Parts: sequence; C-alpha cells; structure tokens
Amino acid sequence: MDPDGVAKAFVEHYYRTFDSNRAGLVGLYQEGSMLSFEGEKFMGAAAISAKLTSLPFEKCLHHVVTVDCQPAGPTGGMLVFVSGSLQAGEGEHQIKFSQMFHLMPVGPGNFYVQNDMFRLNYG
Amino acid sequence: MDPDGVAKAFVEHYYRTFDSNRAGLVGLYQEGSMLSFEGEKFMGAAAISAKLTSLPFEKCLHHVVTVDCQPAGPTGGMLVFVSGSLQAGEGEHQIKFSQMFHLMPVGPGNFYVQNDMFRLNYG
Repeated sequence: MDPDGVAKAFVEHYYRTFDSNRAGLVGLYQEGSMLSFEGEKFMGAAAISAKLTSLPFEKCLHHVVTVDCQPAGPTGGMLVFVSGSLQAGEGEHQIKFSQMFHLMPVGPGNFYVQNDMFRLNYG
Repeated sequence: MDPDGVAKAFVEHYYRTFDSNRAGLVGLYQEGSMLSFEGEKFMGAAAISAKLTSLPFEKCLHHVVTVDCQPAGPTGGMLVFVSGSLQAGEGEHQIKFSQMFHLMPVGPGNFYVQNDMFRLNYG
C-alpha cells in the first residue's frame, strides 16, 4: 500500500476506535509515546489512554476533512497531518480540530504512534 | 534553551521571514525537505521556495495562537505544531491555518525543516 493509503487507513482506524471504543486506543501507543492534548503533555501508553478515556463526554463523532502524509526521514517513520471537525456529545456543535501523528513502524504495514499533538481550532 | 523555547524561537523566525522576505525562507530547507501545501507536494529547497514565493499575494501577516512541540525520536529531530490565523493581502479577512514542521538538527541550536505541512482551516 502506498504511504497515502497507509495514512488514510490509519486515520480511519484511529477515529473509528476513538468514537466507538476509546479504551482500545491504548494499543496504538507505546512506553515512549507522547501526547500533547490542547497543550497538556502525557507520556506513555497508560497515561495517554487515561487522558483519552477520561475526556468528559460519552459519545464522540470525528469527521475527517483532510489527511496529508510525508515520510519522516531515515527512521522509517511517517508523519500524518489531519484536519476535520468533531462533535463531542449528542446535540453538541461541531468543533474544528487539527491533529498530527508521527507513526513508527513495528513490522510490515504495522505502526505505533510515537508522537500525537491535538488542538481544537475554535472559530 | 529548552525545546519549547527552541520551537517558539523557530516559529517566530519562520513567520517573521515569511511576512517580510519570503525568498529568505529558502535557507531553512535542504535538498531532501518536503512541503505539503494545501495538499500539493514539493520536494527540495528550490521547489519549496519557488512555491512559497509564487503565492499570489504581496503582503502577508501571520498571527500565531498555539505552538506545541515534542522530540521526534532518536534522530534528534523536533516536531512543531502551530495553529493561528493569517491575513494574505491588505484588507483581506483573517483565515485560520494549522501547520506542522519536523526540524532536524544541523549543529548546536541550528535546525533545518525536513517536513512541512500546511493547511488552511476554512470556517
């Protein structure tokens, strides 16, 4: 699969898991993984998962608008840059967001999230 | 200087150069550098600079709202994630944007841009 295809498949998997079974995201991170969530920093799969599962809404729906991807360099990683909107809770307004992932390979066609930075784009 | 300080200094330098002397940005990229600009891909300092200097406005003013940064991994690189708004041309509306940079070290306190992804966030 070409890099753009891999990036799109990852993004679909990530937000589908986020929106249906947030606790399942823990498997995408490792001990050295980092998350910046609205400026707050977390390190390691356990701390990242604790943050994501503690977000104060039950239902969430992400709508992805753009996915860009580039090879990150000699380590074989991949950078994925997403923009879209999300609805956190039933009846809530759509809020725009942007997010970037640095994916590192752990085998053929398999990646974990080394870096994750998320921001809401209030309008 | 701490990583957040380095990231903020880079971001200030980048947008000040963009807004005052766009051709000067060429020095921040190298042959293997990559730019995704609104989904269009460019590789190498010359092609990236040609794109940036050909953008169809004379004056531009970036207003940075958030800067996040994380170490990219064992290669010593740094990931910088920016959100803000820009005004392209006098009297134009502010448009929100987000942009990510993967900076690679070329000496103590010196970096070049290995990866650059830019998106406007139309509201």
